[in-house]
Amino acid sequence: MSEVRVATFSVSIDGFGAGPRQDLQNPIGVRGFELHDWFFHTDVFKTMHGQERGETGVDNRLARRAFDNVGAWILGRNMFGPIRGPWKGDDWKGWWGDTPPYHTPVIVLTHYARAPLAMNGGTTFYFVTDGPEDALARAREAAGGKDIRIGGGVSTIRQYLTAGKIDEMHLALTPVLLGEGEHLFAGINLNALGFTQIEKIEGERATHLIIRKRRAPTT
Amino acid sequence: MSEVRVATFSVSIDGFGAGPRQDLQNPIGVRGFELHDWFFHTDVFKTMHGQERGETGVDNRLARRAFDNVGAWILGRNMFGPIRGPWKGDDWKGWWGDTPPYHTPVIVLTHYARAPLAMNGGTTFYFVTDGPEDALARAREAAGGKDIRIGGGVSTIRQYLTAGKIDEMHLALTPVLLGEGEHLFAGINLNALGFTQIEKIEGERATHLIIRKRRAPTT
Repeated sequence: MSEVRVATFSVSIDGFGAGPRQDLQNPIGVRGFELHDWFFHTDVFKTMHGQERGETGVDNRLARRAFDNVGAWILGRNMFGPIRGPWKGDDWKGWWGDTPPYHTPVIVLTHYARAPLAMNGGTTFYFVTDGPEDALARAREAAGGKDIRIGGGVSTIRQYLTAGKIDEMHLALTPVLLGEGEHLFAGINLNALGFTQIEKIEGERATHLIIRKRRAPTT
Repeated sequence: MSEVRVATFSVSIDGFGAGPRQDLQNPIGVRGFELHDWFFHTDVFKTMHGQERGETGVDNRLARRAFDNVGAWILGRNMFGPIRGPWKGDDWKGWWGDTPPYHTPVIVLTHYARAPLAMNGGTTFYFVTDGPEDALARAREAAGGKDIRIGGGVSTIRQYLTAGKIDEMHLALTPVLLGEGEHLFAGINLNALGFTQIEKIEGERATHLIIRKRRAPTT
């Protein structure tokens, strides 16, 4: 069954999923890259970026699994880029160069319409202006029965989470204190949202926490 | 040098240090005991309570270390008991029976004066009504050069933390989602408070996170 998932989403010890003051130099906010240090060492990341081989342990296995069976992605507009307000032309094509790491349709949540953007490697960005619910319906259609991965950022995840749309979240707890930034769970009652299953897997550089909703019994 | 420490303080994955609605049946709030499941399995806990021997791995080693070199404790009034408002007589002697696990002077922060309470095993509760700063001064005096351990609860820790008084915190991250309760770090900027050193130790049932302030250079 198709699921809506968050995967390998890095959070600091104090619960931040991004640093503050995102801009062109700080795509994940100030000090945000530190959250992803564990990922940068993995073979998944390094081969994705044409670098020499990386580490192939537990962290890498979980990074790889995060891409399994994903048929479509949803990204918030700020995860796609640092531009606020109307698009200034079509120059901005995301942070990821000509061949983004998605290789599927990617729905970008935005208030500003823009033509679809086909990239190398099978990624096409679709800019959706009718809100998260519509974006999810579009992603479901595009995913062809596979899972939908909510890529981020924090605000997008929080929207889908509080709307009860997310089935599974895989968090990578990283030994970093950010102090400020975007807090992933502040004010959200994960218990009331139905998350009860917890799996904890210790990686080389991150502690992987997988939380899932209890499944409705199939009758 | 004497330090002010928090040790083996259990927090849920979603950052709660206690459940909601503390009462006589729920000393750590509803579902609060789940936070401490890892501790209940340790040999330190079991021998402390006269039970058969417990587990002696990493969790136990860290539980033991938490008591090392502690000369005095500070507890918030709600950690001492469920009574609110004025003391109703001297019947309430804490949650811990005749021989509390402290074995040192214990300063209890309260708005209501009460005579010191000497228990078996070297624990004496002193009830201090002149606020956290005074309580810390009293604890320092009582500790005789050893460390002061802030036992909790969450609100007491947050007061000393934001006042910049805590040197080290050892948190035991436990695979539990509480959803509601007392959040340990919400709105607190640990980075701005000077916490930069992070040690992560994987135990059998908890992930131990030790955060420390950078030390002022000794000149």
